[in-house]
Amino acid sequence: METTTIRVTLNRGEDRRIRGGHPWVFSNEIRETKGERIPGATAEVYDTGGGFLGTGYYNPHSLIAVRLLSREREEIDSPAFFKERIGRALDLRHRLYPDMSTFRIVHGEGDFLPGLVVDKYGDWLSVQILTAGMEARRGAIVEALVEILAPKGIIARNDVAVRSLEGLAETVEVLHGEIPETVEAEEHGLRFRVDLAGGQKTGHFLDQKENHLVLKGMAAGKRVLDCFSYSGSWGVHAAAFGAAEVTCLDISERAAALARENAALNGLGGVVRVEVCDAFDRLRSLRHEGRRFDVVVLDPPAFVKNKKALKEAEKGYLTINRRGLELLDAGGYLITCSCSYHMGRELFRDLLAQAARQAGRQVRIVETRSQAPDHPVLLAVPETEYLKCFVLQCV
Amino acid sequence: METTTIRVTLNRGEDRRIRGGHPWVFSNEIRETKGERIPGATAEVYDTGGGFLGTGYYNPHSLIAVRLLSREREEIDSPAFFKERIGRALDLRHRLYPDMSTFRIVHGEGDFLPGLVVDKYGDWLSVQILTAGMEARRGAIVEALVEILAPKGIIARNDVAVRSLEGLAETVEVLHGEIPETVEAEEHGLRFRVDLAGGQKTGHFLDQKENHLVLKGMAAGKRVLDCFSYSGSWGVHAAAFGAAEVTCLDISERAAALARENAALNGLGGVVRVEVCDAFDRLRSLRHEGRRFDVVVLDPPAFVKNKKALKEAEKGYLTINRRGLELLDAGGYLITCSCSYHMGRELFRDLLAQAARQAGRQVRIVETRSQAPDHPVLLAVPETEYLKCFVLQCV
Repeated sequence: METTTIRVTLNRGEDRRIRGGHPWVFSNEIRETKGERIPGATAEVYDTGGGFLGTGYYNPHSLIAVRLLSREREEIDSPAFFKERIGRALDLRHRLYPDMSTFRIVHGEGDFLPGLVVDKYGDWLSVQILTAGMEARRGAIVEALVEILAPKGIIARNDVAVRSLEGLAETVEVLHGEIPETVEAEEHGLRFRVDLAGGQKTGHFLDQKENHLVLKGMAAGKRVLDCFSYSGSWGVHAAAFGAAEVTCLDISERAAALARENAALNGLGGVVRVEVCDAFDRLRSLRHEGRRFDVVVLDPPAFVKNKKALKEAEKGYLTINRRGLELLDAGGYLITCSCSYHMGRELFRDLLAQAARQAGRQVRIVETRSQAPDHPVLLAVPETEYLKCFVLQCV
Repeated sequence: METTTIRVTLNRGEDRRIRGGHPWVFSNEIRETKGERIPGATAEVYDTGGGFLGTGYYNPHSLIAVRLLSREREEIDSPAFFKERIGRALDLRHRLYPDMSTFRIVHGEGDFLPGLVVDKYGDWLSVQILTAGMEARRGAIVEALVEILAPKGIIARNDVAVRSLEGLAETVEVLHGEIPETVEAEEHGLRFRVDLAGGQKTGHFLDQKENHLVLKGMAAGKRVLDCFSYSGSWGVHAAAFGAAEVTCLDISERAAALARENAALNGLGGVVRVEVCDAFDRLRSLRHEGRRFDVVVLDPPAFVKNKKALKEAEKGYLTINRRGLELLDAGGYLITCSCSYHMGRELFRDLLAQAARQAGRQVRIVETRSQAPDHPVLLAVPETEYLKCFVLQCV
């Protein structure tokens, strides 16, 4: 890219959050800018008194006007910069998962690379470039990834709505090499077919890896219901941990086909049944049919894409959790998740309490979990945490 | 006990929390009582319209006037009642810990036995009777415990300040059999001497059992600092998981002696050093001496005994966490706990963020944990959860 550097000076007091380790500057926090206000331009950020705060990239069209990549005066456009930064992120994963080939390498702000997500599926990479600043540095990013990881292919899953906030189009593009129709990923010794180009998010939900293990010991010999099952990762894990029968529900034919394939791939096709249906409706009809389960998993897609939609989403979470609880007997487990950042942990907990009240159930919190550690959460950046996973038991 | 039953009618609307599964009736929620207002009397609770809510026990001297034990019209004074209730609690522990001999059997409200705590240390029981209602039923409780568990001894560690809120004296009493000077408890294959009559709480901190395991993989070959170490359970676990050196800090000579004994008992006396000192001061002087650690554990006693003391306690948590972080290099871990109910999870997290800011550290949240599952948390009763354990890493 053509490097353009602008100088950004903040209003008095607006340096506080930044000095506390947060990487975002909102547009209304800026006193003045000097230089050409090009989307993606490098930005040097200063406090009102001229004290240097860090180097980032700028977007005049975004509410988040600057995202910092460094607290130093640093060149942030080169492949060398990205090699160093991605290399550090990769070190953490190698410590976390010495024997794994599928994991998230870069988790945006959590790895000091705001606006960039990189997932590794064996020899293939699936990336998300979410900001104009990262879009402008795409060449350097790809070069760094190729040099460090020598992948067979890199696909950009830029078909995400948040790109519109940055003035970017929604696209899916192959950035390097070739991308097969599906690739195979391994999780806890189980095999999963992943649709890199057409699946949800980057193809698979890597953020639930460790959470799947809560089924161990819990599922053996039991009847398990996996709602919003997508490609069946909860259901297949339950079956692998000895479930007597597993019912997966998903509204997408394509996802259901993938879930069936994944069950068969692990020799569990006889245990896992997949129904194509609306989980909201099916949860109700299962109750009317008198069906009971020992374990219910609720792992819905993000109902809350923004703050405005929160009220509506709350109703949705309340409904499925109440219906899920109604299918359980005493001793039964509900594993219930929310991946919406705007649905805070305390709010989600209150909502689960309300659902239990409505279902007439006394419920024990067995465990409260978050996202896999290859999706790092920074204490100073609450936005890096989004996944809530509660393990509840009816008493 | 002489059974006296009083009838308690609530003010309009005050049945809502109760119907939601919460067992407490506050004194200002009561419209009228009928019957003799004796501390510990059985209470039948009704809403304003005469709808039955449950059976509990009453105390005219406590802000929490009634604690419910049942949602039915039930006889709650007999050994038979306690046998059934304790038996159910024990079932959960047998499922959780089929091979363990030391665990909490009854966790008050979490096991639908408000005001009663029972910990099992092999053949001995250490109980806490925290309310007038449970004090009045002490005979029935002891009879039930003896019948179910045939313990060699039961000690009541009623030397706790909360008893004064119920008009009860602070005492330590042997309720059954004999209590040796120390007993031996096992945790994850490690041996610990427990001082049932004179140790903190019921003798050992069973609520950190699973949390100790986070040291696995983290401690090997490392320098570990265990602050407020009491009888050394964090430090001994660190040493057992291969720590190169472990430094325990505790202000009590007696606790330090117990920690040394526990290290030796596990053949780890050469790795674990115990210093008798004020951890607040020592954390500062270690820094001035230029000492560095790879893992720092902060597991202080409850700084917050009530809401009023919260501000003061916040300062204390802030200080130790800042000082703890200052002893770590990049990659180093802080395991930091708060066992004060009044220090909420969100507040504690904010406070840790502030400590990181003051220490100039960018910090990753590796894991957020709670208390061991033999200390059940009820979704409808927030008061059943008190322990917060954050695993942080400097990046």
